[in-house]
Amino acid sequence: MTIQRLIEDRYGLPLCDHFPQCGEEHSQSGHTTQPTEDNSTLRTILQHASARKFESEKIQESLMQLLFATAFSAPSKSDLQQVSVVRITDPSQRKRIISSNPKIAWTEHAPQFMVWCADNRRIRKVCEEKDYPFANDHLDSFMNAAVDAGIVMQTFIIAADSVGLRCCPISEVRDNIESLSMELNLPEHVFPVAGLCVGWPSESPSTSMRLPLNITVHVNKYDDEEALFRISDYDHRREAIDQPPTEKQRQPERFGIADIYGWSEDRARQYSVPLRSGFGCYIRKQRFNLC
Amino acid sequence: MTIQRLIEDRYGLPLCDHFPQCGEEHSQSGHTTQPTEDNSTLRTILQHASARKFESEKIQESLMQLLFATAFSAPSKSDLQQVSVVRITDPSQRKRIISSNPKIAWTEHAPQFMVWCADNRRIRKVCEEKDYPFANDHLDSFMNAAVDAGIVMQTFIIAADSVGLRCCPISEVRDNIESLSMELNLPEHVFPVAGLCVGWPSESPSTSMRLPLNITVHVNKYDDEEALFRISDYDHRREAIDQPPTEKQRQPERFGIADIYGWSEDRARQYSVPLRSGFGCYIRKQRFNLC
Repeated sequence: MTIQRLIEDRYGLPLCDHFPQCGEEHSQSGHTTQPTEDNSTLRTILQHASARKFESEKIQESLMQLLFATAFSAPSKSDLQQVSVVRITDPSQRKRIISSNPKIAWTEHAPQFMVWCADNRRIRKVCEEKDYPFANDHLDSFMNAAVDAGIVMQTFIIAADSVGLRCCPISEVRDNIESLSMELNLPEHVFPVAGLCVGWPSESPSTSMRLPLNITVHVNKYDDEEALFRISDYDHRREAIDQPPTEKQRQPERFGIADIYGWSEDRARQYSVPLRSGFGCYIRKQRFNLC
Repeated sequence: MTIQRLIEDRYGLPLCDHFPQCGEEHSQSGHTTQPTEDNSTLRTILQHASARKFESEKIQESLMQLLFATAFSAPSKSDLQQVSVVRITDPSQRKRIISSNPKIAWTEHAPQFMVWCADNRRIRKVCEEKDYPFANDHLDSFMNAAVDAGIVMQTFIIAADSVGLRCCPISEVRDNIESLSMELNLPEHVFPVAGLCVGWPSESPSTSMRLPLNITVHVNKYDDEEALFRISDYDHRREAIDQPPTEKQRQPERFGIADIYGWSEDRARQYSVPLRSGFGCYIRKQRFNLC
């Protein structure tokens, strides 16, 4: 399948339809004819999909170590390296983590399970050891550590996808964040960003169609004047290939049964219910200053 | 160069030295002999380096569009797609953004410059249009949007690296976040996470050595009892291949000239000075509730 076709599948639209000016420029320069068709990295990323069903086969430990070594090669904000991952290898510990949240019961049989954490403790310990003041106890530090955890986790996912494994990031591990935090023995200034399951997929998971790039890519100024119209078109494109059954509509007792139940309807219903409203309280207990 | 050698270069240690149990398992299963040596995605990630010096040659517009299409294939928290990127194509606008911050003067000649933003506005607009309550006005929403922006940006970086381009993420764009935000016309509930320069590199940038994985990868419980000792070894390994000249030591008037000026000394000196302490205030003005 060509790269252009992979893009068309990912967006339900050919690439040219996203941009007002599209098409191949004519140029004599040396770099403009770089072959992308046989670029397996672009193919891996464009075909990314999360999997929840895995073969029972274990993943070789040497491969896991290779993937971690690859993931932590990701760029790091100011070279601070504020990421830690906790691998859950003890089955009874995994059971305890899962037992408090039925939404993640399916993770019980995933070959590997881990929790990616933002780690702002390391730099604080280094400052303390040297007796230098840590002068960045504010919101920027919280965000940088969280973003870096996401960056390293995504690098792990791409690396895993490239060898044929599949992953599923699980933000629901944060639903019971205080008990998870105790279970993992997380000290102050460390917190979970997402869980991740990894395994050899037992079925080919479907890719998730993305918003068109004329919504997400802006030029010089942020501009979402046309966004709602474009989202409506997107809802129709998505629904045409992946209409959820009526019984999967969220909260019909509250919002009724929608004729067109697209991305925006599903997301809006999801976010009409508070999720993890205690997260800020937990983060303050982990001694982050969010000012 | 073998993958094992790339890892050794990245960490200054062979992979086996990171883990108490290391080595190839003997297994008869089908997946355990996946060839990793010719896996160009692993190689691309392991060889990642940020570049600040670029050839003057432009990047084909069709290639930029392909990279954006690839980047936005990244996983998205609850499929909410809370990321926007603003490309700065107007040279006078780029000059205005750069002029307020001498630390990023070098970005003036990068072929491409963009700002990755966390975008929590889209889902709020969708809820408003449908007249459903947005029930997640708390810290979780702020963090999810920021993390997703980092995830998509990193996916862009890996895609760009894979075609031979090089990038440099620039968190310093947040040093003057209010003026940047006005320049980009960012509405409420949208904020910059990082700038990014992209171009064809004019020199081969050096990779940044990473902390050993026995600091960053934990098993079942978070444990950093040995971390400071291991950081000291890491400082020596890093210094052995990349000793910064004495005049590059930060704040000698305050902390003196260190004999061993490794990673930890440099990072601790950096964070002894407040950076972006007004970020929280700006985020609240963008109408995020951080409770």
